[in-house]
Amino acid sequence: MEGVNQLKNKKYAADIDSIKEAHTRISPFIHKTPVLSSTSLDSISGKQLCFKCECFQKGGAFKIRGASNAIFSLEDDQAAKGVVTHSSGNHAAAISLAAKLRGIPAYVVIPKNAPACKVENVRRYGGQVIWSEATMQSRESTATAVQQRTGANLIHPFNDKRIISGQGTISLELLEQVPDLDTIIVPISGGGLISGVTLAAKSINPSIRVLAAEPMGADDAARSKLSGRLITLSDTNTIADGLRASLGDLTWPVVRDLVDDIVVLDENEIIKAMRLCYEVLKLAVEPSGAIGLAAILSDQCKQKPYWKDMRKIAIVLSGGNVDLGVLWESLK
Amino acid sequence: MEGVNQLKNKKYAADIDSIKEAHTRISPFIHKTPVLSSTSLDSISGKQLCFKCECFQKGGAFKIRGASNAIFSLEDDQAAKGVVTHSSGNHAAAISLAAKLRGIPAYVVIPKNAPACKVENVRRYGGQVIWSEATMQSRESTATAVQQRTGANLIHPFNDKRIISGQGTISLELLEQVPDLDTIIVPISGGGLISGVTLAAKSINPSIRVLAAEPMGADDAARSKLSGRLITLSDTNTIADGLRASLGDLTWPVVRDLVDDIVVLDENEIIKAMRLCYEVLKLAVEPSGAIGLAAILSDQCKQKPYWKDMRKIAIVLSGGNVDLGVLWESLK
Repeated sequence: MEGVNQLKNKKYAADIDSIKEAHTRISPFIHKTPVLSSTSLDSISGKQLCFKCECFQKGGAFKIRGASNAIFSLEDDQAAKGVVTHSSGNHAAAISLAAKLRGIPAYVVIPKNAPACKVENVRRYGGQVIWSEATMQSRESTATAVQQRTGANLIHPFNDKRIISGQGTISLELLEQVPDLDTIIVPISGGGLISGVTLAAKSINPSIRVLAAEPMGADDAARSKLSGRLITLSDTNTIADGLRASLGDLTWPVVRDLVDDIVVLDENEIIKAMRLCYEVLKLAVEPSGAIGLAAILSDQCKQKPYWKDMRKIAIVLSGGNVDLGVLWESLK
Repeated sequence: MEGVNQLKNKKYAADIDSIKEAHTRISPFIHKTPVLSSTSLDSISGKQLCFKCECFQKGGAFKIRGASNAIFSLEDDQAAKGVVTHSSGNHAAAISLAAKLRGIPAYVVIPKNAPACKVENVRRYGGQVIWSEATMQSRESTATAVQQRTGANLIHPFNDKRIISGQGTISLELLEQVPDLDTIIVPISGGGLISGVTLAAKSINPSIRVLAAEPMGADDAARSKLSGRLITLSDTNTIADGLRASLGDLTWPVVRDLVDDIVVLDENEIIKAMRLCYEVLKLAVEPSGAIGLAAILSDQCKQKPYWKDMRKIAIVLSGGNVDLGVLWESLK
């Protein structure tokens, strides 16, 4: 219970109060997404699963929660200069959408390897696209340059209290929709989503288990957790394009102290989960979004000491923005 | 209003009473499927659209409504001999599932060109697969042979009062979920779905418009409606594998008298709609299921005299059983 005591000391970037404030602030701009279940997947997994469908969220991913919290937190004179961010896609689209809702400009630094559908989303919502190299260093330096040129407010995709608080609103909805959960499984990348979800969920129910699901080709969180110190990766390789970032100094302490375990998945496990989402749940879920289902279905998870204690499990399907252009062309 | 007066004379195979009875009978076995909407698709279409998500129905399609109504209508001694049907897939899976729920055998005649995922569904639900040629003649003669051998009850996929009444329960839910609809768009194949939906909807609201959406490569309903007599096609060619059947003698009168119009779509329009379901609605919808969205987005529909009168439109997304095996293999 060390983690939970630390939670009470409010030593982390966000807390239940900032998350509840965020929920009040962003409710007019977001969907309360539905929770779905499937007897087929319950039967396959041997557990009672429920799926928090952030693929139905505005912009097709959970990111609008943090983005709208950050943008609607700004004072008017600050806001007028606009906002700037760097992102592989879903955060970028969410910032563009939230800025449009507030009527301010959004400057978005996008790495060259981002999926086309996510770039399109940014443009559709009126964001101004600025390209960078795929490395975190290039993303950050390009964003800083834009910030210096325009005076816009930098909104980091995950290492930001406002973002973490916004993403945490998922737990407020989820524990109202399904109060008797014992486990929540969340994709992990920079850690904004899992930090918010964990801080809110463990504040409401300290005994709830939070598991992170991470791709083998971008396993900085698992390496960090194992070694007890923050490890960042300069090179990542995974189909889960939303999970390529490394943890930041605000999210690492939450992962270190409060996230119960990290399940690492290979590419085939991720694709198989995405396919099950499509064929069984009838949902479009991107690889990053399906990884939580991959975790519960993995052999690795079945060997964990807590496997037998898991009964009712929520899986956050974090987004549904997936590029299947090749497929549609092939059907013609 | 000629059609509506005819409706009051109860000259059709089903009526509001048989549909309400069906709803009471099948409610324990089916999902009340959600209705979704999308500001993006409203903006693309210029109309207020809502989507009745039968892709989330048990077995992945609306067919369980009719199948469970038919099977739970049987007397115990009749039921004991089992049921037999022929179907390109979704009705077959639904009959298998409903028979399993009742604990009786299901014999299912499936044409050789049915999608693999639909055949798998039949087997998963315990149905016994018997192959036939792709023609309606071969399907029917094979089913008759099985019936003679086993004594099983033949449950036709659409030309059956119990089936039509079961499918009509969609309208009872839909008009409760969205009471102020002016139009419902429904895929048309053998006509069981559209007959039930039309009979129920026009009984509740005589001024509601019902449009059928039909693939150009299986346009028997449009040809029949145009010529005023039932035309069946022996050869069809469309990606919408669920829409290859021709109308029957019980469904044709409803289509002739009460369905307001038939919109005919080409293959690219159907695929484009399926892609929009995936990319915008985040739903897996099979080609047959997406055709209603194709109809409202077609140039043809915009030139109809009733286009300007349509404001709030429900589109029945009839099923989500789609074979994308090639795609998933290509991702590996």
